Amino acid sequence: MRVTIGQINTTNGDYEGNVARILGAIDQAKQDASDLIVFPEVTIQGYTSLDWFLDKDVVRSCLDPLNRIIAATEGLTVIVGTVRPNDQATGRPLYNSAAVISDKTLLGFADKTLLPEYDVFDDPRYFAPAQKRLLFDIGDTKLGIAVCEDFWNDKTFWKQRLYPNDPAQELIEMGANLLVSINASPFNKGKMKVRCEMVAHRARAAGVPIVFVNLVGGNDGIIFDGSSLVSDATGRIIMQAPAFAEFTGTVDLDSGIPDPRRLPGDDIETVRQALVLGIRDYAVKNNFTKAVFGLSGGVDSAVVAALAADALGAENVLAAMMPSPYSSRGSVEDSVELSQRLGIKTIEKPISEAFHALRNQLGLPEPKAGSERPAIENAVENLQSRLRGNILMTISNAENRLLLSTGNKSELALGYCTLYGDTNGGLAVIGDVLKTEVYELARLYNREREIIPQSIINKRPSAELAPGQFDDQSLPPYDKLDPILKLYFEQKASPEEIIAAGNETELVYDILNRVESPANEFKRRQLPPTLIISRNAIGIGRRRPITHRYRRQPKPSRAAQ
Amino acid sequence: MRVTIGQINTTNGDYEGNVARILGAIDQAKQDASDLIVFPEVTIQGYTSLDWFLDKDVVRSCLDPLNRIIAATEGLTVIVGTVRPNDQATGRPLYNSAAVISDKTLLGFADKTLLPEYDVFDDPRYFAPAQKRLLFDIGDTKLGIAVCEDFWNDKTFWKQRLYPNDPAQELIEMGANLLVSINASPFNKGKMKVRCEMVAHRARAAGVPIVFVNLVGGNDGIIFDGSSLVSDATGRIIMQAPAFAEFTGTVDLDSGIPDPRRLPGDDIETVRQALVLGIRDYAVKNNFTKAVFGLSGGVDSAVVAALAADALGAENVLAAMMPSPYSSRGSVEDSVELSQRLGIKTIEKPISEAFHALRNQLGLPEPKAGSERPAIENAVENLQSRLRGNILMTISNAENRLLLSTGNKSELALGYCTLYGDTNGGLAVIGDVLKTEVYELARLYNREREIIPQSIINKRPSAELAPGQFDDQSLPPYDKLDPILKLYFEQKASPEEIIAAGNETELVYDILNRVESPANEFKRRQLPPTLIISRNAIGIGRRRPITHRYRRQPKPSRAAQ
Repeated sequence: MRVTIGQINTTNGDYEGNVARILGAIDQAKQDASDLIVFPEVTIQGYTSLDWFLDKDVVRSCLDPLNRIIAATEGLTVIVGTVRPNDQATGRPLYNSAAVISDKTLLGFADKTLLPEYDVFDDPRYFAPAQKRLLFDIGDTKLGIAVCEDFWNDKTFWKQRLYPNDPAQELIEMGANLLVSINASPFNKGKMKVRCEMVAHRARAAGVPIVFVNLVGGNDGIIFDGSSLVSDATGRIIMQAPAFAEFTGTVDLDSGIPDPRRLPGDDIETVRQALVLGIRDYAVKNNFTKAVFGLSGGVDSAVVAALAADALGAENVLAAMMPSPYSSRGSVEDSVELSQRLGIKTIEKPISEAFHALRNQLGLPEPKAGSERPAIENAVENLQSRLRGNILMTISNAENRLLLSTGNKSELALGYCTLYGDTNGGLAVIGDVLKTEVYELARLYNREREIIPQSIINKRPSAELAPGQFDDQSLPPYDKLDPILKLYFEQKASPEEIIAAGNETELVYDILNRVESPANEFKRRQLPPTLIISRNAIGIGRRRPITHRYRRQPKPSRAAQ
Repeated sequence: MRVTIGQINTTNGDYEGNVARILGAIDQAKQDASDLIVFPEVTIQGYTSLDWFLDKDVVRSCLDPLNRIIAATEGLTVIVGTVRPNDQATGRPLYNSAAVISDKTLLGFADKTLLPEYDVFDDPRYFAPAQKRLLFDIGDTKLGIAVCEDFWNDKTFWKQRLYPNDPAQELIEMGANLLVSINASPFNKGKMKVRCEMVAHRARAAGVPIVFVNLVGGNDGIIFDGSSLVSDATGRIIMQAPAFAEFTGTVDLDSGIPDPRRLPGDDIETVRQALVLGIRDYAVKNNFTKAVFGLSGGVDSAVVAALAADALGAENVLAAMMPSPYSSRGSVEDSVELSQRLGIKTIEKPISEAFHALRNQLGLPEPKAGSERPAIENAVENLQSRLRGNILMTISNAENRLLLSTGNKSELALGYCTLYGDTNGGLAVIGDVLKTEVYELARLYNREREIIPQSIINKRPSAELAPGQFDDQSLPPYDKLDPILKLYFEQKASPEEIIAAGNETELVYDILNRVESPANEFKRRQLPPTLIISRNAIGIGRRRPITHRYRRQPKPSRAAQ
């Protein structure tokens, strides 16, 4: 049996575009003499449609585009993700389904059973769970279909499970001799490897081939990496689709040989590719061709410059340099050098004149690091950042350029940023990239030749909002901070677990209390979408109240009680 | 049997404060010689704790504060909402429970079965559904307890139901002769009346008394109104707690007489009280005593001024007047007059100097309504709003004043606002109040004497960002716009339903497409928390992707197909 992966890049609500991509891939499958083509989860509408799934129009329009697809399936079986109405009297309005179409006939739907409700996922808000499990007879093939989460709960693979049942295993026990898994599985560092092992493990254990197809593309902050897989019945991966690109390709389940493609790992190049796709898709799908950002002379904006040039073409990227009286001249020179090497445009718009006008009018003193009036000092420093934010938004509005914000995850976690200032933007490009990872990206860009001037990488990090100000006066050293943040966010580790991993007790409690303080939750609530590269990132998957009095403190030891 | 309503105002994670309030109400109940006191849903931790419920620390600390409460229950039964760990191998980490304590003994827990997942609710993200239904024997009383949603699915009351089962009815069928319902039911216009009818209906149908206790207080944008109720076994409301205030009060189930208190309806005074509580609690719970906002001379900021003075005391409210060259002098005079009548402080900080500095530096023309270069015009207008935003945030930072943003729902729906400008703030006070409702609030404030100068109310609405600019050049008249927005948001009505209600077809499609455009979803994503007074409001209950191509259009008629 010949099977085709239809790894396409969907846009929410783009019925025309999504169906055109589906039909194009079906044509390719026919040319490849394929028997079966498989598309990702909710291909027709776009998996990340959120509350559009609750809209009566969307509920009603579920099945219409299917007819165009059905008409194109002569001689072929097609499995395509779609939503469809739940006609029961109670429950959520839709099923999240795989439509099974063979030779111009709609055979039926396989509905999703396990509905994820964690991190960025809210399936139970939209979908009713499947009522039953079905096999589809295609010639001699007994086809079982698991929609995303239904495949991800194998008790022989995961140490911890979220659900008591395993729908994919039930399909195997019902006699499936081919298992298809359709997914919208977002990119996280290291996840591709896990998927590959999970698919191979189940194929080997069940002795059935598995076609695992994943969505590709950026949608707001969520980046789907694709990386679809086909395993033969012995657990050998006989086809692997590329990460971060569309792909239509065919393999024979019976005669396929192991695919030699190297698995993309969790190395920094993989992160770079994810971010580039995330920028490009956010721009393209929102009709931006050009971007602007503030280039400060620091490593964060330098890395964003390089990523933006990769994503949109250097000629479409404008770097605004907006020095204040507290900017070092080196910062501007380094910025110009970087921009020339990348081939991006620059403009220089100092903020000094407007800053002095407002400072005088508001009766504010000159900024002074380590001021004795921290609230006033804070106001003076933020004002500079906000004037830069004004200039950037003015350029964005006037030239229809997407504003890329350049704050890193370490800063955003600790609130070391100015709301309505440097946080401004359409997209927080490195909002899920820790400062130490930003340095890794900078070194990656310089691997073959120096693109990012070494002086930028070597510079002592500074917001340059007051004379003699440096990050390490306000923040712990990044090499101590980032490991704590990594455990806190990505592993949801408790303070005790973070301390047990070798971090200082006092520092751990201090950092967690800063991260979680109402003032910082407040800032993060108003951030632009963040490109997500890790689990439990800052962004739509983090849902914390602003107003709260939770506070971390060491537990009294048992002896002291 | 004597029962006490413990309608208290909780703060997320404030174990000390919440337990102190619980103990205080228990003392009151003892003084009232009560047999039973009932507290709201998740009283100990705070129902709106969101992802704190996923935190290992919170899971572990669930039961500790209970011990202090248990110790205080001599001679009394106490029902108090709390979360408790789910010890099963799979599923979400907690149950949402009612702890049942009698005479210093913890009798057990009644867990929540129906887990709402719509609008602002995400219970399935945190909670496992109850495994079983229990009755508790307290003397001769067989006590059934329904946690919030478990009470809200009575098929003889609701036309449409979300769930097939009715846990409260099951408790009655098991023989409950007293039903307790603990709630965290947010305020919506008209909801108090519905609750009252629902409680009376079930009591009458089942022939059992019902104690229905609701949370009170603001938590970010969500406002719980309290309005707890006790019905006797014939469906007569024998006690009604006030709305928008804490309350501990006792009634005898056997000898209670109908409570003559007038039900708060969905009139504008009720809305005013909700907003005042929302402002006050957001400030108090986040340690703000003072507020600042921009007073423009228009009706929106005038109403916010009056609400803020009610909530925080006039002496704590600062109005910043920031005229531009395009502000009418009348605007400043009206603002001064209003501020004097309210007794709030004012400062005047014109933006002209900084605006001209930046405009010249960026090579922008003078603003001109109806400009032929709309992107440039947009940039010039927004720049003024953003400079005002800078000034307000500078005052907020320097004086630790909560910045109240003053945009109304009609504007925010249509994106008629400047991101990082007039949307800036800690709280969007009237972000769920339509412009026509803002006028109602203004007239309410003027009912006894003119507080808001009539010239403000009569003024033709204008953003005053360009000469001769008025809202009605960019927006439909508010009396045509608001009914459409009301149906769209509050009823989730389809375009056809909105048209069927008597609105113009073309206008309906135009408005819906503007509301839902990616550019406007983008702006709303970065708003501060909005005080919510209606269903499906702008705020954390609205979850739409920015990136999408959904578009409303009239369906072809059947005849044309």
